[in-house]
Amino acid sequence: MTAMPPLRRYLPILDWGRTYDKTAFSNDLIAAVIVTIMLIPQSLAYALLAGLPPEAGIYASIVPILLYAVFGTSRALAVGPVAVVSLLTASAVGQVADAGTAGYAMAALTLAFLSGGFLLLLGVLRLGFLANFLSHPVIAGFITASGILIATSQVKHILGVEAQGHTLVELLISLVEHVQNASLPTMLIGLSVTGFLFWVRSGLKPMLQRLGVKPGLASVLTKAGPVAAVVASTLITWGFDLAQSGVKIVGEVPQSLPPLTLPDFSPDLLSALLLPAILLSVIGFVESVSVAQTLAAKKRQRIDPNQELIGLGAANIGAAFTGGYPVTGGFARSVVNFDAGAQTPAAGAFTAVGLAIAAVALTPLVYFLPKATLAGTIVVAVLSLVDFSILRKTWGYSKSDFAAVAVTILLTLGLGVEVGVASGVAISVLLHLYKTSRPHIAEVGLVPATQHFRNINRHAVATDPSVLTLRMDESLYFVNAQFLENLILSRVTEGCAIRDVVLMFSAVNEVDYSALECLEALNARLRDMKVGLHLSEVKGPVMDRLRRTHFIQDLNGEVFLSQYDAWTRLHREPPPNKAAE
Amino acid sequence: MTAMPPLRRYLPILDWGRTYDKTAFSNDLIAAVIVTIMLIPQSLAYALLAGLPPEAGIYASIVPILLYAVFGTSRALAVGPVAVVSLLTASAVGQVADAGTAGYAMAALTLAFLSGGFLLLLGVLRLGFLANFLSHPVIAGFITASGILIATSQVKHILGVEAQGHTLVELLISLVEHVQNASLPTMLIGLSVTGFLFWVRSGLKPMLQRLGVKPGLASVLTKAGPVAAVVASTLITWGFDLAQSGVKIVGEVPQSLPPLTLPDFSPDLLSALLLPAILLSVIGFVESVSVAQTLAAKKRQRIDPNQELIGLGAANIGAAFTGGYPVTGGFARSVVNFDAGAQTPAAGAFTAVGLAIAAVALTPLVYFLPKATLAGTIVVAVLSLVDFSILRKTWGYSKSDFAAVAVTILLTLGLGVEVGVASGVAISVLLHLYKTSRPHIAEVGLVPATQHFRNINRHAVATDPSVLTLRMDESLYFVNAQFLENLILSRVTEGCAIRDVVLMFSAVNEVDYSALECLEALNARLRDMKVGLHLSEVKGPVMDRLRRTHFIQDLNGEVFLSQYDAWTRLHREPPPNKAAE
Repeated sequence: MTAMPPLRRYLPILDWGRTYDKTAFSNDLIAAVIVTIMLIPQSLAYALLAGLPPEAGIYASIVPILLYAVFGTSRALAVGPVAVVSLLTASAVGQVADAGTAGYAMAALTLAFLSGGFLLLLGVLRLGFLANFLSHPVIAGFITASGILIATSQVKHILGVEAQGHTLVELLISLVEHVQNASLPTMLIGLSVTGFLFWVRSGLKPMLQRLGVKPGLASVLTKAGPVAAVVASTLITWGFDLAQSGVKIVGEVPQSLPPLTLPDFSPDLLSALLLPAILLSVIGFVESVSVAQTLAAKKRQRIDPNQELIGLGAANIGAAFTGGYPVTGGFARSVVNFDAGAQTPAAGAFTAVGLAIAAVALTPLVYFLPKATLAGTIVVAVLSLVDFSILRKTWGYSKSDFAAVAVTILLTLGLGVEVGVASGVAISVLLHLYKTSRPHIAEVGLVPATQHFRNINRHAVATDPSVLTLRMDESLYFVNAQFLENLILSRVTEGCAIRDVVLMFSAVNEVDYSALECLEALNARLRDMKVGLHLSEVKGPVMDRLRRTHFIQDLNGEVFLSQYDAWTRLHREPPPNKAAE
Repeated sequence: MTAMPPLRRYLPILDWGRTYDKTAFSNDLIAAVIVTIMLIPQSLAYALLAGLPPEAGIYASIVPILLYAVFGTSRALAVGPVAVVSLLTASAVGQVADAGTAGYAMAALTLAFLSGGFLLLLGVLRLGFLANFLSHPVIAGFITASGILIATSQVKHILGVEAQGHTLVELLISLVEHVQNASLPTMLIGLSVTGFLFWVRSGLKPMLQRLGVKPGLASVLTKAGPVAAVVASTLITWGFDLAQSGVKIVGEVPQSLPPLTLPDFSPDLLSALLLPAILLSVIGFVESVSVAQTLAAKKRQRIDPNQELIGLGAANIGAAFTGGYPVTGGFARSVVNFDAGAQTPAAGAFTAVGLAIAAVALTPLVYFLPKATLAGTIVVAVLSLVDFSILRKTWGYSKSDFAAVAVTILLTLGLGVEVGVASGVAISVLLHLYKTSRPHIAEVGLVPATQHFRNINRHAVATDPSVLTLRMDESLYFVNAQFLENLILSRVTEGCAIRDVVLMFSAVNEVDYSALECLEALNARLRDMKVGLHLSEVKGPVMDRLRRTHFIQDLNGEVFLSQYDAWTRLHREPPPNKAAE
């Protein structure tokens, strides 16, 4: 990042705040109204998914969004509860407390506190790059599997039964066991809402456009689908008194601003939640940064991932002290915010005010809102995340990427979210190490009429039987050092005409100490065999390091700037009768 | 490895056995006699180190050595108990049973069985390369720290006190607590033996040479030092009846061939010992293969690491069923075997016969052998392994290699052998990933009068402000994909004259799926900015893979065979007045 005064780097609000004007204000305000309306049902639904009382979802959208507005670098990111993080919260907190208890809500606060602390720490230490250990295919596989898990976990609310489980099999078995207790009115509401929302997503917009409605308006009407479903199902449940017929409703939600809360700092709870908090933080951060980067790119703005860690860390700590639970930047809400014209993080602040008003004034209105409606909005939202095409794409491109995706999906579904994503990271790293442990080594020759050298098996090139030129297609380090030494020695012992070996280092980005020892051993062996060992195209940083050792002066040959220099120096003209050919 | 009939690949004895002749027989026999004499005290001493009865050390040297002779590929490797593996055995078995109990010996058999099974499995699956995850500096650090731990663990025998612990601090505290109980006659023997053996190692050989003794004979006399110490201290202890004065002696050792034993297959024990067995196997294998390779290289022979796994696996399973404990190829015994002229693994078989005779006939002779003498031989042997120079060497060459060594040494001493070596491996891998996550990217230009391109900051090269050529000094994969995308974009946005970006892929050995997505995003962004994106010097395997996607056809530019081609095509001649300069 460019040099910037420290205060402005850590408080991006000082940057955009100085040029804030009336146009930005009105744009931000309009976006905030739209986002607020969308967020009320969404916040309630995600709290349900996390196993928390509905107000926790609203509270988690107020102070965190304000703190992110002060510390975050994205202009359009909307921070709050999101589906995957809510699922991870349910999974982590469910291991230390029972859903519905005070201990459960307390554990969720503690999880938010730990997550915020960890994100802040990474941000201050500028370790944002660690999130890169989650590869794109692993993330895609994880999101797809999580979507399936979340949708399955909501089926119980749509059927009106009790069921639980952290893996797909557990959930399905539990559903089958309880399905005979399904409540008919609940199912009617749940299935109608789900069906309606699917139709809104796929059928409404084209229909409106056919009817001549402008695309912008059609898009807004489509986004209003969940609000319509909430209003209609609440009215029906109230009008027909369906709560008496077994339809579970949201019920009383306290009418208040976010309360001041304290997480539980007992060492047992902290240590039990530490690993889940780290996992949740990394996944939430990756999701948030990718949304923020996508939106920033559209306006040629830039995101500072390390400052994002600080913004999200502050937001989570805010959630921990104001009755919320872990939050991150959400995809759906951020896109709505962006599309609605939000120009600065002030839009987020106005959304927070809107939600605070809702928390104080509007919560009685959701008393009769059926939980089945909220479950339906979750199912439709998360099924749009399910995308198995990553399996086909990686299968065609790289089997090791495919393996990482497949393992992540299978283990997330089969053993739960935490094992799934951890295994995905582990297998990506191991496969990478495996690939670099047996690198490609090409014998190269001169492409005629150029100074360029290429693989003798792929190109028509000139070679010299007395000079073996091998291009090392990998950095030399402990995992492959021995392999390379063995391979080079066996290549040399095969060809008895060889007088010189040139190792072309154009693709060698590092030579670690283990590899240095192998090169020294190779040099000694080749010297014994009266074969010269030369290097060519050694990069600056690698050469700097080799110069600190005796290797270069002990080298039984030379170091050439370019492979062409090596060739012109070592190549003997073929005998005249061959040259005449 | 070259193609070979499967039976001969798995039974190397069929290879060397067919050409076995009288010369080889007599050479092998002489070597076997020398090694047998050396091994008797050494086997007793290592059994003491492992916390096992002395005969376990002898038994572990008989059947295992025979099985290795059948399945192993090294001509000179001598398999049996070694110092580091004995220490690891004591550490692993000590966690599940008390030293001196029948359960302890049983656990040692089980450990050998698990270790053998694991090595066989790796060998059959041809996964020998996994041992490469132990980098040279980590091994060096581990051996040094183990040597210190082993020497410290033997001090109690030299002082004649009880003391225990698995870390340096535990051992030292325990020694200090018990030092007031030290036995004077034990100390006299222990310290004299230790001092004598140090003198033999450092002072005897030069002295003998000054006295005109031939180097070969001087070397043999030096090697006989431990045997002399054993004989002398046994005679003194017997003659002065020192056992009555508190000198601990070896005592009765059963006079028998190795007994048939069965490991304990209870699931609890197997699962408790599995991880230690894996660790011990890998360390033992690395030690053994490096000795075997060193010796093979001197005679231009080759080792097949995967077949070595099978040989060592068979040896350990043999140890498990014949009253032994985990074994591997030892450095000292193999070097003696090699120097004494062993030509084939038959030398090992003859050594086994010699030790079997010793087990049946000679064990009464060691009744009065003081344990302090054995402890002295161990101390002198392992202190020769202690070599802190690896710290200095890696410090000068590469700070990350230094960090791996330092962590390994500190954690091995401070938290024990298992934590130490596991942390060493983990930190090596993490540091490697960290380095590749922020790769070097050089802007390059044409070296005048060549077709070669080099870093503009290191060489006087020709550049063109409208063409930005960046050499990616790393494979592009998930850990660095985002970093590269950001870096390239910020380079392009800095320079407004840039019309074309060429990514020189000479050092890119892989482009994984995550990196492909980043390249696609980069291509789209540069297209929006009306900047061309070109690739040059893409390697065959990378190009094959990219061709399977839409990336190449969507590319907003060209793929050039060489960077020089890219330059000649994209470079616009500077205006005449500049060209005239």
